[in-house]
Amino acid sequence: MTNTILVVGSLAYDDVQTPFERRRNVLGGAACYFSFASSLYAPVRLVGVVGDDFEQSDIDRVARKGVDVSGIERRPGRSFHWSGRYDYELGSAETLATDLGVFATWRPEVPEAFRDSDLVFLANIHPEIQLEVLEQIRQPKLVALDSMNLWIDTQRDALARVMSRVDIVSLNEGEVRQFGRTFSVLRGAREILALGPRALIVKRGEYGAVLFTETGSFWAPAFPLEKIQDPTGAGDSFAGGFLGYLATCETPDDAHLRRAVIHGVVCASFAVERFSVEGIEALTRDRAAERYRALRDLVTIGAEAVAEDDPFAAVTR
Amino acid sequence: MTNTILVVGSLAYDDVQTPFERRRNVLGGAACYFSFASSLYAPVRLVGVVGDDFEQSDIDRVARKGVDVSGIERRPGRSFHWSGRYDYELGSAETLATDLGVFATWRPEVPEAFRDSDLVFLANIHPEIQLEVLEQIRQPKLVALDSMNLWIDTQRDALARVMSRVDIVSLNEGEVRQFGRTFSVLRGAREILALGPRALIVKRGEYGAVLFTETGSFWAPAFPLEKIQDPTGAGDSFAGGFLGYLATCETPDDAHLRRAVIHGVVCASFAVERFSVEGIEALTRDRAAERYRALRDLVTIGAEAVAEDDPFAAVTR
Repeated sequence: MTNTILVVGSLAYDDVQTPFERRRNVLGGAACYFSFASSLYAPVRLVGVVGDDFEQSDIDRVARKGVDVSGIERRPGRSFHWSGRYDYELGSAETLATDLGVFATWRPEVPEAFRDSDLVFLANIHPEIQLEVLEQIRQPKLVALDSMNLWIDTQRDALARVMSRVDIVSLNEGEVRQFGRTFSVLRGAREILALGPRALIVKRGEYGAVLFTETGSFWAPAFPLEKIQDPTGAGDSFAGGFLGYLATCETPDDAHLRRAVIHGVVCASFAVERFSVEGIEALTRDRAAERYRALRDLVTIGAEAVAEDDPFAAVTR
Repeated sequence: MTNTILVVGSLAYDDVQTPFERRRNVLGGAACYFSFASSLYAPVRLVGVVGDDFEQSDIDRVARKGVDVSGIERRPGRSFHWSGRYDYELGSAETLATDLGVFATWRPEVPEAFRDSDLVFLANIHPEIQLEVLEQIRQPKLVALDSMNLWIDTQRDALARVMSRVDIVSLNEGEVRQFGRTFSVLRGAREILALGPRALIVKRGEYGAVLFTETGSFWAPAFPLEKIQDPTGAGDSFAGGFLGYLATCETPDDAHLRRAVIHGVVCASFAVERFSVEGIEALTRDRAAERYRALRDLVTIGAEAVAEDDPFAAVTR
């Protein structure tokens, strides 16, 4: 079983500020975080664009994980640059500046050799471009997309169109509410599933993630951490662990999707423990497996001792 | 197995305002919510105080659930009256006014017939008074307490003293942080467990609850609801379901504690679905059992198909 994964998205340099520390020009970008996480599980191909300021050594860091980086285009101009700040809440970033650079006018071209990829992750980008990428893949077994508030605001129809063509949609809680124009995440989730995707992942930051499918939902906590250094990239690392695990499954059923959520949570937890991609870059399968088991223990109720299906069996009055 | 439960705490009339509705003089109070929930599971005895404005019909509502209300003292004066407002977040109430009335000077006297109670819930009240109550109980098998930010601020030592004498402490997330003087709930939890209780329940509102014990933790989500009418009493209803279930266990082990959390979450979910105590008052064992099973499904990962203890077993590269 060696399903291949294609990711199309940004490579970036970030300036990140937290109440405790400030780092400039650190490696980031959705495709970057995703690649580090998913390459723990399966062969990964990356399609992205960088400017002439992007260090070859940073591309090498990704390549060192076995990621096929031949789909990274280098163009004259600046690389994507994001500046953000987190306050003590750490839950959501305040964007101070976004300089799209060469990313602004990029229309991804999927190399011929990548067009047979089995799983595809369309990282956050204009939904029309996500559709264009999708047209270039021959017969993907499974496609997932991420998006953001900007596209819900300005490209709702295009976003709904691409959502209807993918298997898995990944959004944060606020975006689900925004898309559904409701305070109820349940209602928002139903509206998104009605467009056609098989599953919706709702990311809830320090409160974990929820998987919604036709048949039900699965609520996973975040892995409890004493120290969080940099929440940047948590969602894309989650997606990397999630799709990475699914790449190892012959035919993913709903139980596989649930386990994939746990893998996603594990990868996200390593990503936020250190600045930039450092945490997810240093992750090994052994450490991920160890945390997977720990997280499983944190959510396992345990077998019913008295009566499997009547929790009131012991009430005798 | 008929362990008896004693609850000592407030009966009140509340004015509650949400963005959608406003209700005045509705039945409330920690002991009241707790009694409705726990009486689903076991015989409950209530010790509380009311003023001469308290309707006998409201005491009858509690008595109708089989709760022994002979420990409710009636005194000249006003009953406890709380006014609060919730905004769209619904997560925490803004207290507009608290009129303690007869509750202000009350020193609970546990009736002789109640002193052999097996389980005790010390609802939120001055920690010195919680200690006084504890002195009056002969040999409880299990004691739990709830508290609040005010006592952490002003009675920290007394609160630590009573915590060291109970089995289970119940606080919300902010209070755990406040008690531990840390942003880390994990560190706060460790500090509280170090005082001696066997378990700490951390209530997280719409994000569920966490059980911390010596050996680990258990993270349960809230039951997902489309409509929340009134979050008042969620914590005390949780405590009622939690202790109610434990009352049905011979010797509660850690697996029982985990299941008790699920019972707590179930009771809290019914409490917040309707105004005042209406939701928890109307709850039946059948409906609670049904939601227990639904919640269990929402958190169950499912058995590992590939290899029980190596989540990377299928990674062949």
